[in-house]
Amino acid sequence: MIAQKQVRDYIRSIVDFPHEGIVFRDVTTLFADPRGFRMAIDQLLHPYAGMRFDKVVGLEARGFILGGAVAHQLSAGFVPIRKKGKLPGAVISEAYTLEYGEAVVEIHDDAITPGERILLVDDLLATGGTAEAGIRLVERLGGEIIGCAFIVDLPDLGGRARLEALDMDVHALCAFDGL
Amino acid sequence: MIAQKQVRDYIRSIVDFPHEGIVFRDVTTLFADPRGFRMAIDQLLHPYAGMRFDKVVGLEARGFILGGAVAHQLSAGFVPIRKKGKLPGAVISEAYTLEYGEAVVEIHDDAITPGERILLVDDLLATGGTAEAGIRLVERLGGEIIGCAFIVDLPDLGGRARLEALDMDVHALCAFDGL
Repeated sequence: MIAQKQVRDYIRSIVDFPHEGIVFRDVTTLFADPRGFRMAIDQLLHPYAGMRFDKVVGLEARGFILGGAVAHQLSAGFVPIRKKGKLPGAVISEAYTLEYGEAVVEIHDDAITPGERILLVDDLLATGGTAEAGIRLVERLGGEIIGCAFIVDLPDLGGRARLEALDMDVHALCAFDGL
Repeated sequence: MIAQKQVRDYIRSIVDFPHEGIVFRDVTTLFADPRGFRMAIDQLLHPYAGMRFDKVVGLEARGFILGGAVAHQLSAGFVPIRKKGKLPGAVISEAYTLEYGEAVVEIHDDAITPGERILLVDDLLATGGTAEAGIRLVERLGGEIIGCAFIVDLPDLGGRARLEALDMDVHALCAFDGL
């Protein structure tokens, strides 16, 4: 019997990217493989089988790849959260702290209707800063976040604990130790 | 009898974005609508029914949303083409000309195997500069581009003619006059 390849086996680790001391978990090798990509989308949606979602919200940029696939699978709409200045219509913004300085993410102010059921997706949960900013944006528009789904969790960086402290339901397909 | 809403009816036009004199065709309103998004993905794939694709290549960033959905629908892999410096692994690059200056796009050098059948997708075809750079990247890796699919065509900007001159099969869901 041959052991089936799992989602984490498709993920490539790149040492010292984007800078020295970081091991970057590269999901592009997962996405490029037809079996890997399908397995990832199927497992990402597994906890939500039978549930209804109005919209999938994806975080720029790798969250767009997952978000598009998940929204299509769910027959839901897709809403992007983008870095400052990228969205053409009227937006609301949230700032969040980075290792050095801060960043701002935005959502179109008419992208979600109050009461809509939302699934938030991104490839990786690290400190949870971007995800928390995304959650605030969705909630300011009146959306109800049913779940937050990620491919990779880096629990040592505290993102899962941070989102769970906000009463979020966090789902990740695999976890890696350290950075 | 009520006329069915078409893909172009979901697209929002924003005057003077990103700068004065430009009418920006905003597909986020199409993607945010469950019926609109599904209609877009279905129509994008319509010409390719019954054909086999190994990989879908999407151009950053809105092409990731479409590309993820299309790759999942086709049970193909997804490969991103990104702006310079964003991909963590070894890449090959192509420069292309912008209105002012030039830009560079990149693809992982192991993302496509020679002979693989590729569908290239993006939201909008304007001058075709980014798409042509993407085509060159895929072909340098030995990929065979079966089709190039877009939501919006702006034929006055010459992109369709430019890609057809490269013997590409171009499919777009709707066209708008002018910029």
